[in-house]
Parts: sequence; C-alpha cells; structure tokens
Amino acid sequence: MKINQLQNSPIGVFDSGLGGLTVLKSLEKILPNESFIYFGDTAHVPYGTKSADTVIKYSKNILDFFSQQHTKAVVIACNTASSVAYHALQKNYSIPLFDVVSPSVEFAIQESKTKNIGVIGTITTVSSKAYSQQFADKNAGFFVHEISCPLFVPIIEEGWANSNIAREIANIYFQGFEKKSIDTLILGCTHYPIMADTIQSVLPAHVQLVLSGETVGQKLSYYLEANKLINTSSIDRNIMFYVSDFPQKFNDLGSQFLGRKLNNLTHISIM
Amino acid sequence: MKINQLQNSPIGVFDSGLGGLTVLKSLEKILPNESFIYFGDTAHVPYGTKSADTVIKYSKNILDFFSQQHTKAVVIACNTASSVAYHALQKNYSIPLFDVVSPSVEFAIQESKTKNIGVIGTITTVSSKAYSQQFADKNAGFFVHEISCPLFVPIIEEGWANSNIAREIANIYFQGFEKKSIDTLILGCTHYPIMADTIQSVLPAHVQLVLSGETVGQKLSYYLEANKLINTSSIDRNIMFYVSDFPQKFNDLGSQFLGRKLNNLTHISIM
Repeated sequence: MKINQLQNSPIGVFDSGLGGLTVLKSLEKILPNESFIYFGDTAHVPYGTKSADTVIKYSKNILDFFSQQHTKAVVIACNTASSVAYHALQKNYSIPLFDVVSPSVEFAIQESKTKNIGVIGTITTVSSKAYSQQFADKNAGFFVHEISCPLFVPIIEEGWANSNIAREIANIYFQGFEKKSIDTLILGCTHYPIMADTIQSVLPAHVQLVLSGETVGQKLSYYLEANKLINTSSIDRNIMFYVSDFPQKFNDLGSQFLGRKLNNLTHISIM
Repeated sequence: MKINQLQNSPIGVFDSGLGGLTVLKSLEKILPNESFIYFGDTAHVPYGTKSADTVIKYSKNILDFFSQQHTKAVVIACNTASSVAYHALQKNYSIPLFDVVSPSVEFAIQESKTKNIGVIGTITTVSSKAYSQQFADKNAGFFVHEISCPLFVPIIEEGWANSNIAREIANIYFQGFEKKSIDTLILGCTHYPIMADTIQSVLPAHVQLVLSGETVGQKLSYYLEANKLINTSSIDRNIMFYVSDFPQKFNDLGSQFLGRKLNNLTHISIM
C-alpha cells in the first residue's frame, strides 16, 4: 500500500459499547479531515465486569475486523480494554495501536503541581492498576489515588448525569479524595465526560479533569503528522459506525455521547 | 431413562449472571431434596440490554448444556430470557421449561383485590410487555402498571440496596404508582429481592411484593409432584454451579444472592 493510500485510510476506534463515542467526538474535533470506523461491541457490553481473558478475546476479533478494513491506526477507546488487552494486542497486530490510558498519564504528569493524581474508573480498570502502574513506571514521584465508581455508567445511561442523585453518589465516591490534595483527576472511563459538570461540582474548583478523548487525540495527531499520515483533504471523508447488537436506548445514548445523530450505522456479528 | 432415574436427575436453573441465585435460594427451600445445576452466563451479563435474538442464542447454548446433563426440568431464572426467549426454547427442546414470568402473573391474579398490579423490571423486560401481555391474555380485567428501574441492579451490585440513595431512586421510579391504587407489585428481575425492604419501605404497607423464586418454586413443585418426579431421598443430593466467566466481586455477590457460600463452582466456556 502506498503512502498516499494510507493517508486516506480510516482510523479504527473501538469500545465495548457506545461510551467510546465521547472519544470519537474529541478525535473528530482534533483531526477533522480523517475518516473513522467506530466499532461498538454492544453484544458484549460492559467489558468492565468481565475477565481479562474474555476482554482480550473480544478485542482481537475487533482488531481482525479493522485489519480487513485497512485502518492506518486504531484507538482502543475503552479503558478496560486499554488496561487489560493493549499488550496482548500489540504482540499480535502490526497496526499502530493507541490506548486511552498512557496519553492521560503523560498529560497528568505534565500538568500536576501537587503530584497527587486522582483516577476514577470501572472496577476492572481500577483493579488492573493500569494507571498507577504507568505512573510508577515513570518513576516521577507521583501519588495516585484510584477509586472505582460503578454507579456512574448506569446513572449516565439513565440520563441522570447531572441530577442531585448523581451529585450525592459522586460525593460518596469522592469522600476519600478530601484530604489527598489532588489537583488533577483522570476520568478513566469513556462515559464519564458526560458527567464532567457533576464531577467538577463536587471537587475543589482548581482540580483539573483529564478527558482521554482529548489526550489520545493529541497523541494520535502527533503520530500521524510525524509519519506523514495526516489526511490533507476532506474529500471522501467518511465516518462509519458498526455495532455487534442493537441495545435498548441505542439511538438516544449514542447521540448523547457523540453530540449528533449516528448515521452510516451497520449491525454486524463478528464473533 | 426410567422414572426413578429421572427422579434423581438434577433441575437446571439459569440466569444471565448471578441474580438467578435468589431464585435458586427459594427453590432449595421449597424442594429441599432436589439436585440443582445452576448456570450463570456471566460472560454475557446483562441480558437486559441485549436484543431478543442475542438472548435467544445464548439461552439455546445453555439449554444444550443442560440437555447433556440430563436435567429433568429447567427454570429460566432470568426475566429477560423468560420474556423474550421462552417460546423459542419451548419449540426447540423437549425438557419441561419453567419461566419466571407466568407463575408471578398467576399468583398476582389470585391475590390482588384492586386488580391494579405494578410490575418493575429491566428496560428489556418492560419493553417486551411480557407481563402486561400475559395479564391481557387471561382476560380478567386487570390493570398493569409496568416501569423499568435500570438503576436497581447496579445499586444492588454496589452493595447499597438498603441505602438512602436506593430509597431516593426507588421514590423517583415509583412516583407514577402513587395514584394507581396497586395492591400487588411483581419484582420482575431476579436481583430485586435483595432490595425488597427498600422497595417495601417506599410503598404503602398493604402492597404485597411478589418474588418470582417463590412463585416458580411452587409451580415447579406441583409439576414434579403431579408427574411423580419429586426426589424422595436427599442421598446424593448435589448442587453444582457453572459460570461462563469470573467477574469482579463474583464471590461477594454470589454469596449475597444465595445466602451462603458458592461451592462446587466450575468455569466453562460453552459458546
């Protein structure tokens, strides 16, 4: 495949469900000329409650699909898959892979002054210690306070992201943060940007929220530029959506996450 | 297979995850001499957000597994599967099948005086109108008020079933019940018995809660007696647990639902 063909190739983005659409939304803003193929594994959502082996198996099936579509890069827009499947995928595929964990870690290290970082995510993401391990690997003396917030995803999916109940739940989860002097909070789950206002409202005003869509978008943008893979023309730009199942509330949720209606949507069974 | 062999055969019980253990707990109490095989499809939990076709596919795989184990009856201890897969399974398998919807409908018809019945369940169960359709089929002039309570399962799994937040959420969901003069509320999801105290506390005291484990247990018990299939001896009684994945919090949740520790637990991949 020639360079200019690769420039026109799409970027694959996948998630266990629709949450990754918040990442795609950021990617579209940062890389407005690129074509994207989004795959939401809605038949197996959520990955956050499944074992690492199961998540790796599902992720490989999706990478096989992206390989057939000749994607020039793939964003694993799912914190659980980024945490538990990234290395296994890197071993097995030659497509450049971008996880959503490391870009946020690198950004937080640049930005934090107190060196106290909060990380919130699903039970699986937090149990995997993917974030605290990456901070430890940088050996830069950061303290990482990771907590799981299992009720955030369902409360967002219920459409109550900015309700009093959401604020009460956030307050309970963040009780442990009070005395930690964190100045940076990584939203370690793709759903959480929808709830960013509520999360910010129960934290001291100086705490900066880190959204993985923005940090991985910057990293991907640098990579494409450095490798002359940026699509310089928006002609034939195409955004395709694939899902493995049509769950209830699909359109409402998808539009909420993406910020617009989902067109070019196809249902495929790949496993 | 001879009659007395069938008497000793186990009863299959399946659910998308661990919630069905609340049903098994009731079955064990009603049928103390029986052997049971529980299958929790934890690799695919929850069914409540998946399409009917997907739920039917998963349920058939489980029925194939139970067929190999020579079960004398199978309880579909999952409201979603009972609502959307029961008829498809009945067409394809000769094992006597017991869903968890119809026994509760029959019980509510017997018990209600106001003929106003409340039903709560997952989005899929409520959207399927399985309950209201069955009441309509009986043509007995009942009014059925069905609402979905998507946050009950995650709040139970968080261990907050009897918290103030759970009560607030229940209050919001049940606002529509206020003027309906319901006297009977069917808990149309196997998780909900864990939250029964909270649910009862936000409803008028005279409202009777209907638990599917108890109603299907009675129906199964009548069937086994009528067909001389009751196991009269508890010798060699055996309770086996199979799951398709080991999710986080598995043991805590399982013990909470079953009321005791899960022994004889095997992980198998059947699909």
